[in-house]
Amino acid sequence: MSPDSPATATPAADAAAETDILLRADADGVATLTLNRPKARNALSVGLMAALQAELDAIAKDQSVKVVVIEAAGPAFCAGHDLREVRANPGREAYEALFEQCSNLMMSVVNLPKPVIAKVHAMATAAGCQLVASCDLAYAAEEAKFATPGVNIGLFCSTPMVALSRAVGRKKAMEMLLSGRPITAHEAEAAGLVNAVVPAAELDATVANMAATIAGKSPLTLAIGKEAFYRQVEMPLADAYAYASEVMTRNMMARDAEEGIDAFLQKRTPTWEGR
Amino acid sequence: MSPDSPATATPAADAAAETDILLRADADGVATLTLNRPKARNALSVGLMAALQAELDAIAKDQSVKVVVIEAAGPAFCAGHDLREVRANPGREAYEALFEQCSNLMMSVVNLPKPVIAKVHAMATAAGCQLVASCDLAYAAEEAKFATPGVNIGLFCSTPMVALSRAVGRKKAMEMLLSGRPITAHEAEAAGLVNAVVPAAELDATVANMAATIAGKSPLTLAIGKEAFYRQVEMPLADAYAYASEVMTRNMMARDAEEGIDAFLQKRTPTWEGR
Amino acid sequence: MSPDSPATATPAADAAAETDILLRADADGVATLTLNRPKARNALSVGLMAALQAELDAIAKDQSVKVVVIEAAGPAFCAGHDLREVRANPGREAYEALFEQCSNLMMSVVNLPKPVIAKVHAMATAAGCQLVASCDLAYAAEEAKFATPGVNIGLFCSTPMVALSRAVGRKKAMEMLLSGRPITAHEAEAAGLVNAVVPAAELDATVANMAATIAGKSPLTLAIGKEAFYRQVEMPLADAYAYASEVMTRNMMARDAEEGIDAFLQKRTPTWEGR
Repeated sequence: MSPDSPATATPAADAAAETDILLRADADGVATLTLNRPKARNALSVGLMAALQAELDAIAKDQSVKVVVIEAAGPAFCAGHDLREVRANPGREAYEALFEQCSNLMMSVVNLPKPVIAKVHAMATAAGCQLVASCDLAYAAEEAKFATPGVNIGLFCSTPMVALSRAVGRKKAMEMLLSGRPITAHEAEAAGLVNAVVPAAELDATVANMAATIAGKSPLTLAIGKEAFYRQVEMPLADAYAYASEVMTRNMMARDAEEGIDAFLQKRTPTWEGR
Repeated sequence: MSPDSPATATPAADAAAETDILLRADADGVATLTLNRPKARNALSVGLMAALQAELDAIAKDQSVKVVVIEAAGPAFCAGHDLREVRANPGREAYEALFEQCSNLMMSVVNLPKPVIAKVHAMATAAGCQLVASCDLAYAAEEAKFATPGVNIGLFCSTPMVALSRAVGRKKAMEMLLSGRPITAHEAEAAGLVNAVVPAAELDATVANMAATIAGKSPLTLAIGKEAFYRQVEMPLADAYAYASEVMTRNMMARDAEEGIDAFLQKRTPTWEGR
Repeated sequence: MSPDSPATATPAADAAAETDILLRADADGVATLTLNRPKARNALSVGLMAALQAELDAIAKDQSVKVVVIEAAGPAFCAGHDLREVRANPGREAYEALFEQCSNLMMSVVNLPKPVIAKVHAMATAAGCQLVASCDLAYAAEEAKFATPGVNIGLFCSTPMVALSRAVGRKKAMEMLLSGRPITAHEAEAAGLVNAVVPAAELDATVANMAATIAGKSPLTLAIGKEAFYRQVEMPLADAYAYASEVMTRNMMARDAEEGIDAFLQKRTPTWEGR
């Protein structure tokens, strides 16, 4: 929940048919995207997914943005797919298009060359839980809960589990998927789904602090490192080392690493150049 | 421990030479299999493995069964292979046959199109620990312990570690494998080997509650989801999303998902049809 | 910290240009390697990496060594690469050689046919953190900290993350990599980076106890099991079982397994033969 979303927040552009379903506010290198369909518990309608996709695509090319925060307005973080909309557009082609759009969106979070932080103030369900699992980092308020309850409506959370099972252990993921039961924020922290749990009153500051810390790094270095992380983690060990060594050499050849090391040795603050 | 195994429990069929080494009791869609060689600490003799395999094969085709619980009688959950039997049948061919039989059994738990829950009241050792790790979910009494002590007898727990290393982190798995030392139920929970630890007096109720929760879901949805889980978790991210999106579309095209969503939107209880 | 390193510790041989940068002391089947550049916070200079590599290569063939402990002298465990040296030898070829040398060293820890235990008394940073993550087991004093702070100097910890991301969950790894912030020993334990945290005064005894436990096992069994662990963990499930079953049969055919099982059944202490 962002009771104090910056006054400068403006509706995200074109892609959204509905107005104001996604807000964006930029400050100090941090772009904050706010899911803003509070009455629909921020369900990921086709329009909201398109708006998120459009913003992520724009941010990928926006040199002023160093870090992205995804938050949500209202009593829920995100309820997953918009079931009324899903049932109003039945048929194989519509379903295929829906799940492809959603999977592309989640992979865009992973592939974005800038860190993405989820700020989870309340319940994150199904594709909403998937969104949290897909972000690089996640922080939760004590009231937050996480669930993959598709099994309750006969629709197993098969795409959410792709992200979930890469964030938490198998037994915990299966417990959520098979039972549909929500887990608490503290359970989510113990399982590795979120980095930390804080009182609701401290959530904004906790995320702002981490975002500012990361925004102070070289954007080029962050982009190199994030891409390499998700690529190497899928490789056998020897391949991962061959690849990471190549990445590290490329990183060293960039001006920011030489500047950073010299600044460190000279005990001064580095100035970053790379994008 | 199942001091109160249902009076209706009957010996599992044909495959067992010894009688009553595996009990099966079905109630309300839950099939409970009880390892019943208490004097041998439920060691997985060739006969007991064959009996388990036969029951799992039968359950796979049994539409009345929605969930399987594996429990054990006596002072231990399962001591692993039956070492007297192993030494009485030496030679490469006998060993190959033994480990193939055991590996097939463990993969049958994973491949069974119904969730399997381990109810661990006491020590689970070697292939017994592997059985717990292979189940989709596991609950343990506080007295339960877990160990892969093969290294103590010169026989590294190489097949058990296949399941163990997919359930817990590498350092914890290596600690168990290299030292042979048992870990407590609470350590097992922290490591992700079991979902929760409860007082012994609450173990039956805890497992019964989870089994009943899962038995209330659409069997078709559970079968689709469980298969997809173990397949996608081994894939690179983009492949996993392509596969899971296809699975989700197939799931949506089945009647149970449409019924489930409609019931949810209409605030009524769904009726499942799929198997 | 090893304030009481055995008086018999001697400089490790040939490879080191600097003298005494790596100490080795053998006792009761345990080889203890001590990083000994305390003024440089045990930074992994080309010389220190070469000395470590030479010792690991020698130990691989040394039948008197059953277990390796890696510890460090002075106020830090290991600060990662030696940045002054790195900047004094610029250029693509020098960087490629450096990261290849380091990656080979880390893979040698994984591929060594004997268990390796990290004894971490203080801060382990970057490639120092990678070294801890690469060991089979790790124990830390409460004062120990762990960080991958490359991002602070414009050089993402891309090779360290290969080991780190295989020891801990993705969100915790990303938190360390993107923020550069250190985590405490207790956080490292919860994340799976170390096996246990103990008061500094108990660290030597804790590691000695575990090393002695492992040194009492069959070296052949340990070698078979360690190699199989890291190979099977990268395989799909069915391949892993086929491979592990073959390994287990091979293990059974060796004399130590038959001796171990017989000793167990006869309630006597086994005598190991295999190397």
